[in-house]
Amino acid sequence: MSLTVVGSIAFDSVRTPFGERERMLGGSAVHFSLAASFFTEVRVVGPVGDDFGAEQLGVLEKRGVGTADVERVPGGETFFWRGHYDFDLNTAHTDETRLNVFGAFEPKLSKESRGAETVFLANIQPDLQRRVRAQCDSARFVGLDSMNLWIETARPALEAVVADVDCLMINDAEIRQLTDEPNLARAARTVMELGPRAVVAKQGEYGAALFTRSGFFALPGFPLEDVRDPTGAGDSFAGGFLGYLDADGGDLGDAALRKAMGYGTVLASFNVEEFGTERVVRLRREEIDERLAQLHAMTKF
Amino acid sequence: MSLTVVGSIAFDSVRTPFGERERMLGGSAVHFSLAASFFTEVRVVGPVGDDFGAEQLGVLEKRGVGTADVERVPGGETFFWRGHYDFDLNTAHTDETRLNVFGAFEPKLSKESRGAETVFLANIQPDLQRRVRAQCDSARFVGLDSMNLWIETARPALEAVVADVDCLMINDAEIRQLTDEPNLARAARTVMELGPRAVVAKQGEYGAALFTRSGFFALPGFPLEDVRDPTGAGDSFAGGFLGYLDADGGDLGDAALRKAMGYGTVLASFNVEEFGTERVVRLRREEIDERLAQLHAMTKF
Repeated sequence: MSLTVVGSIAFDSVRTPFGERERMLGGSAVHFSLAASFFTEVRVVGPVGDDFGAEQLGVLEKRGVGTADVERVPGGETFFWRGHYDFDLNTAHTDETRLNVFGAFEPKLSKESRGAETVFLANIQPDLQRRVRAQCDSARFVGLDSMNLWIETARPALEAVVADVDCLMINDAEIRQLTDEPNLARAARTVMELGPRAVVAKQGEYGAALFTRSGFFALPGFPLEDVRDPTGAGDSFAGGFLGYLDADGGDLGDAALRKAMGYGTVLASFNVEEFGTERVVRLRREEIDERLAQLHAMTKF
Repeated sequence: MSLTVVGSIAFDSVRTPFGERERMLGGSAVHFSLAASFFTEVRVVGPVGDDFGAEQLGVLEKRGVGTADVERVPGGETFFWRGHYDFDLNTAHTDETRLNVFGAFEPKLSKESRGAETVFLANIQPDLQRRVRAQCDSARFVGLDSMNLWIETARPALEAVVADVDCLMINDAEIRQLTDEPNLARAARTVMELGPRAVVAKQGEYGAALFTRSGFFALPGFPLEDVRDPTGAGDSFAGGFLGYLDADGGDLGDAALRKAMGYGTVLASFNVEEFGTERVVRLRREEIDERLAQLHAMTKF
């Protein structure tokens, strides 16, 4: 089995009450693929500029992530994001965004990337997501992220790609906004009527909820006394979720989706313990399974 | 076993996007005692005015709630609250509060009320809570609610009563505010260092989290497509939680507290389905157990 992610590769400058870092390796495709790399073979598709060097590529390759479809744009600069968080770590404040090479990005998937059984369309312009989706016709399971910007500026394109994926994975407020439905359970049902058979509502520190046609499931965020940088938590969640599902290779039924929610929760929790990718790059599989067992024990009654 | 609650008895006028009601029976002690009445013998302590009649008392008595300590204040009027909710049902907007007889309330507990094994100090001025706590010296388990108003205006008294109860049950934002600690897990630990052996963080539609010295547990809110009026959800939660614990009569260990969280979640979910006490007054015990079984299935992985 294999997994392809299309999304941003970035340099992030982040400040939180617990410290700050300049130009860390970041971006949705990076956080996702590092998290998913603990479960399955991952290929990452996204553009970088001349400022993206062997050191950054090496972080991905060391975790076995396929980088053949990382597109180098000569003379370009890599996507850059600067932001900060106050004590409410659920809210990111953007201070600067430079799209750079991402502005003219047109995803080009190799035959290997197109052939993936599992695909994650990270948060990029919905028309691009649609064109990627159309190329991945052998995918068994496609996950989709998006954001309020696209709901507000590209709703028809977003609705079109939502209709063509298996699982929408966005913030709960955005599910409400997308469907104009204030009740989350109704909003999730409305999304499923468009096409997806599963909806993951990301809820920040409160965890995540899973809606399928046959039921509801929810997990709290893993309780941590030290959260230093929430950047990439949602993509790490998606990486654990889809990485596990791809490796499982089973019927993709509710039991598998619930276990995938567990792995998503665990990967997100490691991601936020330190800045950027610092924690995940030195994570070991045994630590993941240990924390999953703890999460299991924490939700039993 | 028996359970005493001290708190407000009120008339509530409430408007939500789903309707409105004038002068419904409400108040923390009312919502709590109706919820707890499905599990154990409940006595309610609180003041009412001349406008509180046999009809209102009858709602409590029909559910077997002991009303001998409901104090009638001749010439007085019952506590009145008017508020509304927009589509974000997590946030109550207060339009009018008339303390009325509640302004000069000094709780007087009968011997029966003082002898309860379980006590709930609903959200009233912390010095009153302390004086009630001091009278209930045979209690095995005391729960405490409070709010931002008392953290801001009566912090020393609040800290003193917190130190003398078994379980603090407040909103997660208030746990952070009380401890000046933005991280919830640390904030809960700080509360437990003051005295309580359990902290329940209420999280609105996201559910509730339980911190004890030996562990963490969380439950999502029960997913409902129809939420009409969230007033009293927290008190109904507390009623299910403490009502179950009182009836259980066991070691009050983590397993019992987790099951109590389940009953709290279920009672809160019924409470919010309709306005005021409308749903809970016609609730049947079988419906409670059925929903608990559903909640159990929704959290298994």
